[in-house]
Amino acid sequence: MKAKIIVMPKKTVLDPQGKTVKHALESMNFTGIKEVRIGKFMEIELEGGNKAELQKKIDEACHKLLSNPVIEEYTFEIHE
Amino acid sequence: MKAKIIVMPKKTVLDPQGKTVKHALESMNFTGIKEVRIGKFMEIELEGGNKAELQKKIDEACHKLLSNPVIEEYTFEIHE
Repeated sequence: MKAKIIVMPKKTVLDPQGKTVKHALESMNFTGIKEVRIGKFMEIELEGGNKAELQKKIDEACHKLLSNPVIEEYTFEIHE
Repeated sequence: MKAKIIVMPKKTVLDPQGKTVKHALESMNFTGIKEVRIGKFMEIELEGGNKAELQKKIDEACHKLLSNPVIEEYTFEIHE
């Protein structure tokens, strides 16, 4: 099984990295950009197991280790 | 329109950040992990425009700025 996790800065939190990339794109003549936000993408390959149980474990891992719940939010999917 | 871009280290490239996270998860008693790979997730909000043209522009941006084609690979999707 494979878990795909996305961790993004919360909408209410400034994203300086995103701002920098927006300016860099504009300086490459890429116009019409409203906003850029940059986060992390994680792929965890797992040795099978019960999907509901894995869901619980991944959620715990996201909360405790993979994201900072104060400034970031996460979503994940588990595929066969 | 919104472009969602995923940039990951190539399969043939070592991912030390992923290795570190794997060990950290194991030390939290999260067993059964085969591999962890960590990349970037970017969301670009765009002011409408022609989808085919945006696709070309995003591809160029990924290649020139948002990824390092020597060690990373990217995929992206553009949604309405």
